[in-house]
Amino acid sequence: MAMPPSTRPRRLLPLFLGLFQGIVLLFFALFVTYDEPSVQAKDTNLVANQVYSTFPFFQDIQVMLVVGLGLLLAFLPRYGFSALTHNFLLLNFSMQWALVLQGLLHHFHYGQVNLDLHKILISEFAAVTVLISVGAILGRASPCQLLIMAACEIPVYLASEWVIVTSLGVLDVGGTITIHVFACYFGLGVSKALFRATQQPLHPKEIPTSRSDLMSLVGTLILWVFWPSFVAVLCQPGDAQHRAILNTLLAMSASAITTVVASSLLERDGKLSLGHLQNSSLAGGVAIGAVADTTMPPVAALALGSLSAVVCVLGFRFLTPLLGRKLMLHDQCGIHNLHGLPGIFGAAASTVAVLVASKDTSGSHSSQLSPIGGNASEMVEGQWGDRGAGGQALCQAAGLAVAISASLLAGLLTGAALRLPCLAQPPKQLCFDDSLYFKIQDQAESPGPDSSSEEGALALKE
Amino acid sequence: MAMPPSTRPRRLLPLFLGLFQGIVLLFFALFVTYDEPSVQAKDTNLVANQVYSTFPFFQDIQVMLVVGLGLLLAFLPRYGFSALTHNFLLLNFSMQWALVLQGLLHHFHYGQVNLDLHKILISEFAAVTVLISVGAILGRASPCQLLIMAACEIPVYLASEWVIVTSLGVLDVGGTITIHVFACYFGLGVSKALFRATQQPLHPKEIPTSRSDLMSLVGTLILWVFWPSFVAVLCQPGDAQHRAILNTLLAMSASAITTVVASSLLERDGKLSLGHLQNSSLAGGVAIGAVADTTMPPVAALALGSLSAVVCVLGFRFLTPLLGRKLMLHDQCGIHNLHGLPGIFGAAASTVAVLVASKDTSGSHSSQLSPIGGNASEMVEGQWGDRGAGGQALCQAAGLAVAISASLLAGLLTGAALRLPCLAQPPKQLCFDDSLYFKIQDQAESPGPDSSSEEGALALKE
Amino acid sequence: MAMPPSTRPRRLLPLFLGLFQGIVLLFFALFVTYDEPSVQAKDTNLVANQVYSTFPFFQDIQVMLVVGLGLLLAFLPRYGFSALTHNFLLLNFSMQWALVLQGLLHHFHYGQVNLDLHKILISEFAAVTVLISVGAILGRASPCQLLIMAACEIPVYLASEWVIVTSLGVLDVGGTITIHVFACYFGLGVSKALFRATQQPLHPKEIPTSRSDLMSLVGTLILWVFWPSFVAVLCQPGDAQHRAILNTLLAMSASAITTVVASSLLERDGKLSLGHLQNSSLAGGVAIGAVADTTMPPVAALALGSLSAVVCVLGFRFLTPLLGRKLMLHDQCGIHNLHGLPGIFGAAASTVAVLVASKDTSGSHSSQLSPIGGNASEMVEGQWGDRGAGGQALCQAAGLAVAISASLLAGLLTGAALRLPCLAQPPKQLCFDDSLYFKIQDQAESPGPDSSSEEGALALKE
Repeated sequence: MAMPPSTRPRRLLPLFLGLFQGIVLLFFALFVTYDEPSVQAKDTNLVANQVYSTFPFFQDIQVMLVVGLGLLLAFLPRYGFSALTHNFLLLNFSMQWALVLQGLLHHFHYGQVNLDLHKILISEFAAVTVLISVGAILGRASPCQLLIMAACEIPVYLASEWVIVTSLGVLDVGGTITIHVFACYFGLGVSKALFRATQQPLHPKEIPTSRSDLMSLVGTLILWVFWPSFVAVLCQPGDAQHRAILNTLLAMSASAITTVVASSLLERDGKLSLGHLQNSSLAGGVAIGAVADTTMPPVAALALGSLSAVVCVLGFRFLTPLLGRKLMLHDQCGIHNLHGLPGIFGAAASTVAVLVASKDTSGSHSSQLSPIGGNASEMVEGQWGDRGAGGQALCQAAGLAVAISASLLAGLLTGAALRLPCLAQPPKQLCFDDSLYFKIQDQAESPGPDSSSEEGALALKE
Repeated sequence: MAMPPSTRPRRLLPLFLGLFQGIVLLFFALFVTYDEPSVQAKDTNLVANQVYSTFPFFQDIQVMLVVGLGLLLAFLPRYGFSALTHNFLLLNFSMQWALVLQGLLHHFHYGQVNLDLHKILISEFAAVTVLISVGAILGRASPCQLLIMAACEIPVYLASEWVIVTSLGVLDVGGTITIHVFACYFGLGVSKALFRATQQPLHPKEIPTSRSDLMSLVGTLILWVFWPSFVAVLCQPGDAQHRAILNTLLAMSASAITTVVASSLLERDGKLSLGHLQNSSLAGGVAIGAVADTTMPPVAALALGSLSAVVCVLGFRFLTPLLGRKLMLHDQCGIHNLHGLPGIFGAAASTVAVLVASKDTSGSHSSQLSPIGGNASEMVEGQWGDRGAGGQALCQAAGLAVAISASLLAGLLTGAALRLPCLAQPPKQLCFDDSLYFKIQDQAESPGPDSSSEEGALALKE
Repeated sequence: MAMPPSTRPRRLLPLFLGLFQGIVLLFFALFVTYDEPSVQAKDTNLVANQVYSTFPFFQDIQVMLVVGLGLLLAFLPRYGFSALTHNFLLLNFSMQWALVLQGLLHHFHYGQVNLDLHKILISEFAAVTVLISVGAILGRASPCQLLIMAACEIPVYLASEWVIVTSLGVLDVGGTITIHVFACYFGLGVSKALFRATQQPLHPKEIPTSRSDLMSLVGTLILWVFWPSFVAVLCQPGDAQHRAILNTLLAMSASAITTVVASSLLERDGKLSLGHLQNSSLAGGVAIGAVADTTMPPVAALALGSLSAVVCVLGFRFLTPLLGRKLMLHDQCGIHNLHGLPGIFGAAASTVAVLVASKDTSGSHSSQLSPIGGNASEMVEGQWGDRGAGGQALCQAAGLAVAISASLLAGLLTGAALRLPCLAQPPKQLCFDDSLYFKIQDQAESPGPDSSSEEGALALKE
């Protein structure tokens, strides 16, 4: 069976992770605390209500990221353990790293850092960008490379999010621009710089089996169900949050139906492609994020969901092969189709929505308000009233430009850094294989969750 | 390998779905809006509280329908993708279709339709009937047939639900009569009219494998966990909802234990049948719906759950084979045992409960009240006080009769319509096979999620 | 294929379970009711708020126990149905049994038992001990043995919990001592008495396959996500609950990262062990329970999670083989590493936390308060103010001692009782096999969820 490469670099992972955990511990010991007891006494009910209003959303998002996204990535038949475990590890690493970085910033401005559920939620949102970006190089990178990538991506994300939301005042409650577009182009930048102009021929272990595709489809369904919680959690409680939930539900529902239409029309024999279903059903959720809590009419959410699914399917069918051939750009999970194109589409829609909605009463569009324990002074009310609809529309476009350029540049630099030999990128013939990272006991029976067709053929011959 | 039949009818699915999505868009553009901003201003807290009180229930129900039910239906070893995808597609199609139909009705009475979470929830309940009915013909019908079936079932359900709940004032907060009984007999009617008197011999691909049975069992467990949310979501907040949750928990718990008893006693060697476990564990949830929020003592919920599990297991063991032999009635998933028999049993129990409870203070039995944004004038308080316990008991029986007769008649007509050749019913030898509807990449290895190497060898030789 | 042993004892399971269900029905008929209508009238809003604040936590816990734990136990490749079903059956049996026992106690003191969600929650916590203990003998015991074990464990747990929490006033909101430590040593006691000094050689069906390991890993992730709900549900609403959620999140996150470090360092070639990942990622949640709602600084939660993961991995690597060799102690799922060691570690940490926190304002440490419908008089405020920090620290240690000694003794006695021949312990060659308890239709193809019999034969030959 597969022989592991030289085992010396293997020590790097525990050393790096152990060091990181030590730094986090040190930072927490020095700077982080919970709220003061004096504050607690007077607003017990308030805190309780904030917990009850945020915590169910938070748990939904955790299920999405840990179970749903993990299973979605498990479509590589012999890479299921790695997909689930790397996703899980990166989520925790990135979340802690984002907590530390945000805490440091906060510390230099205000002193002691008071931890609350809202801060953890914001850090999880930062971690989401890493989990998305990794999709571009899934299966071809070592855990060390992924961790370095996460370590680089989080600070760039925090800076870019600060510029886009706080400085520019861009409306993006569901993270269409700040999370999805950013993560996509960061991932593509990394992929480009890491693999350069080398062709990445189709590896036999890349082809999903029925079993791994079924797991992945279940992952999609879990993501689909909980997506409204992801979009709505940071909305202002009340009508804005209610609208965000409804708009996301409508967009996701339209995506689901349109995906079947588009996939079925594009394939010669009218059969559905599982890859389309697994990704494009979620495109509406990506696109709706920038406008979910605005007062646009419900039909706009439906149309947005429908069109973004079309865009996603077309991307899989035409753009991904084109980018692979022309730009030698490798995108393992098709994140450009699920996060990049619908994200840009959603950003464009938000520009239109701002212009159309300018006749309405403004002020109901404020976003990114924290329901739990955040200091109100930290947040930024949409200053749209001051700058007019045209100015706000311009800001939306500027935000998109910032997200794309910052992420692409940072991604390219990060990808170049990942080429360091000590990071132990697996050789091509060992890609997409769990046995490189996991002790798998049934080597004889099946080195991955599914036996390859070679082995199947072997079994038949004998 | 399997050759697809003539591919011309394949274009029907995207055309039909695309046309449908266009109609929904048009309807939303013309008639649907969110609440007026003026209304928003004054009750932000109220809206927020309503979102927090309903949304977690709503998400639970979404998980049940999309993940739980999808996995439960995936017991056919080579039909996992189709089970999950058709279930997912039908849910979205039926939900949107129910929104349109209800919106139209509302529009003709009150003008503009104000969308809210409650309206979407009601539409999801309508969609549940379709997802249940489909179980009767799972694996033997094309997606087009299923969509036409959904298109016919939703309006009949809405009419029948209006008659039963609004006109007759039947108590049925958990949908025992309006959803489960209705859906069951509609599905059986379709099955009867579609397959007529032809024997449907056991297809080798119908036999579950260990792997597909395990997925299905996980689906059952997910449904079992979240069932209390389904029953309680429409109850009046406070005691009635609390009672509905407790009664459902007790009934489901008794069902789980009694299923093991009954299945073990009925099989010669005392082994458990997975089919019994997958279905009968849920029977208590079906039966409890009509009485969940009434003031009956807790022991009644336990007894109801226990007995409905017995009824369900007996149905699988004796009634299904009998109906197959005598009436040539084909019921692929045994929906008559899980939804029909326990539903009728629950309806009978509700009659008894009304008579017994007549000495109690009335007024605490009101049901079907919407917590979110619904107009109070639309709803009907149980007029039981006026008509007396005997009258209410009669109403419960009348509601059952309406549900059975309306659904059976409509199902037979729908089933006859599904025989149209353009709907591309798959020929018998291609039933229960994903490869008819999906591009499956590992044909050589496994045409479905399972298949032993023998079958693989067979496939290669052919 | 496998021949079942004499089928006469098979009748015992349905008889025992049927009798049990009858007793529960009788008890409920005689003693249990819902709250009085008079009480309902005045606090509808209160009840509603209590439902909304507890029910989402409750549902999370149900998912953990039914789906998460079931899948985690399904790592035995041919024992998936049994793992899921026995877990499900034991949960319901133990929950009902705990309801009956607690109801009886309550009845003798106060008369009528008023059922509410809080009482069901407390009974579920009792059931958790059984589900954990069973892990020590998973796959080697018949369902009858497991039910008898549950029937014995629940009353001992209730008594021990009363002594520890109510009498001694031990702080243990997340059940570290009362649930995890108790369950672990009860299970080990049963295992010791049941298997005595017989060596249990490695059975080929014990070795997980990639597929069963993947299911188990998904189960771990589900448990990991919802663990904060388990720890926080019984906390006092407001700050204490908020802190419990945050502390659990931090501990679990540190456990996840440290598990990778520890597992990777301990294995010769730096590969990860799936067994470590599946268990040790959860160790932080076990350890944090005793101190989750205290005012210790956040860094303590991180450190606790990190160290308990190290302890758990070390336990798997060194202690389990040692106990097997020296004490002939058989621990199928490694519950001593996941529940015993981190539990003791958490209890020790709680002693330290009490001493350290003694300078803070006391009174914010009250735990085990019921938010729903419980009578305030039943509960015990931490009397720590009266006894001083030293006294409270002593109590924590005493509670740990009570839990270990009571559980070990009761476990040994129960294990001896399980040796009764009528309980049909499966012979060694039939262990770990679903086909002993389930009608499996594809015997020829695959007696377990993995590997056709040919492939099995092949694998053995090679």
